[in-house]
Amino acid sequence: MEKDFFLHRKTIRRYTSADISDKLLYSLIEKAVQAPTLGGMQLYSVVVTRDAAMKQRLAPCHFGQPMVTQAPVVLTFCADFHRFEQWCLASGAEPGYGNFQSFIGAMLDATILAQQFVTAAEMEGLGCCYLGTTTYNAPEIARVLGLPDKVVPILTVTLGYPLDPASEPKAERIPTSAIVHHEQYAGCTAASIKEIYAEKEALEVNKKYVAENAKPSLAHVFTDIRYNRANNEYFSRVLRDFLEAQGYPFPTE
Amino acid sequence: MEKDFFLHRKTIRRYTSADISDKLLYSLIEKAVQAPTLGGMQLYSVVVTRDAAMKQRLAPCHFGQPMVTQAPVVLTFCADFHRFEQWCLASGAEPGYGNFQSFIGAMLDATILAQQFVTAAEMEGLGCCYLGTTTYNAPEIARVLGLPDKVVPILTVTLGYPLDPASEPKAERIPTSAIVHHEQYAGCTAASIKEIYAEKEALEVNKKYVAENAKPSLAHVFTDIRYNRANNEYFSRVLRDFLEAQGYPFPTE
Repeated sequence: MEKDFFLHRKTIRRYTSADISDKLLYSLIEKAVQAPTLGGMQLYSVVVTRDAAMKQRLAPCHFGQPMVTQAPVVLTFCADFHRFEQWCLASGAEPGYGNFQSFIGAMLDATILAQQFVTAAEMEGLGCCYLGTTTYNAPEIARVLGLPDKVVPILTVTLGYPLDPASEPKAERIPTSAIVHHEQYAGCTAASIKEIYAEKEALEVNKKYVAENAKPSLAHVFTDIRYNRANNEYFSRVLRDFLEAQGYPFPTE
Repeated sequence: MEKDFFLHRKTIRRYTSADISDKLLYSLIEKAVQAPTLGGMQLYSVVVTRDAAMKQRLAPCHFGQPMVTQAPVVLTFCADFHRFEQWCLASGAEPGYGNFQSFIGAMLDATILAQQFVTAAEMEGLGCCYLGTTTYNAPEIARVLGLPDKVVPILTVTLGYPLDPASEPKAERIPTSAIVHHEQYAGCTAASIKEIYAEKEALEVNKKYVAENAKPSLAHVFTDIRYNRANNEYFSRVLRDFLEAQGYPFPTE
């Protein structure tokens, strides 16, 4: 494995029909669980979906993104205080994890696990795609997967052997200097912020995107269409209600 | 880099006095930003702390854990919609990211970035330790680092060359089968849950830990001392108030 591995990685959205054995899958999860976890508590679970009917049920939760039904394996990474709490109860201890900060800790754990899994899988030549839709439709995903109290789906990864990796786009990134701050956060001016995003805005693919959507700028495609306020606010309420239903109420006093 | 890299990794808590050049640090962050990010938005920032006086100010935010002042570099990974929003405003677009779901998206982005950074650093022979205290004392960390609206510190990583890696403990993990579920979440019984944690409870280091704290079981050390209800509930309120102050209010209606 070369050291520059990360500079060449890509998100893979199309897969061959080749299956992934449980043996390989477990060996990758075995590597993933070596990632750091809060107090060693391992506040996560992974639900493996292989069954075609189950994928059909998950697909609308991810707004019909084709990877869900096309990938041989779909993995749902969950923040999970359920198992740890069951252990506390079985030990006669009284768990106090029905709160927002505990959810945040479990969410960090599940995300770190997912990312280490993705890296381990990519190192084996597999291709992965994260679906950022999981926290939007968490209630329905939880119903499909039978998630109990204190288990919240956080990230979904579709997994398979790459069909045509050369055709998958390389991610565009703003200059690294824009995300690094020394000692204190460095603010930006209207001029400096436009410069940071200039290369991104100048890409042919993004110009086409702006034209197709008949918007005045690339930023408008994000604010008016892809990640608009109405959706963000609606799904904020859905997630708040779901966290409460799963046993992680927001603090009210 | 060998494929079994992850099986041998360890969290490193003690570092040599050798410094880490900005060139090396940037090359690692360059690798980290190749990780997936929500809609390509890169909703994160990293604040680099090298200054001894700044480390002294951060140390109490992490309950005095010695890594903060001992490590040559301390990195605070932040969920950041500020930069993206500034770009939207400079483009004449109207951002709608002052809500809970947007915070969750930025938190996922920052966590994925942090984990890819940790892996890239470890592959270079550096040692890392996550501090899970960042979301507890986020308000004070934000003051020290001068974090603006919509920037929330999520995870801290201490970084340096390992002083004595052989002396650092290898992480204990429950059986992988306990965290993997096929098609649907598999519940557990009181007997099966005790079996999952049996090996962990039997470790000499954990038996000693229980005895030192004069508790009836290992679970009690977690529920009564390390991650107790009163602290979790207190820091839930602190984080709720801080998210609101940073421009991510919880949905109220």
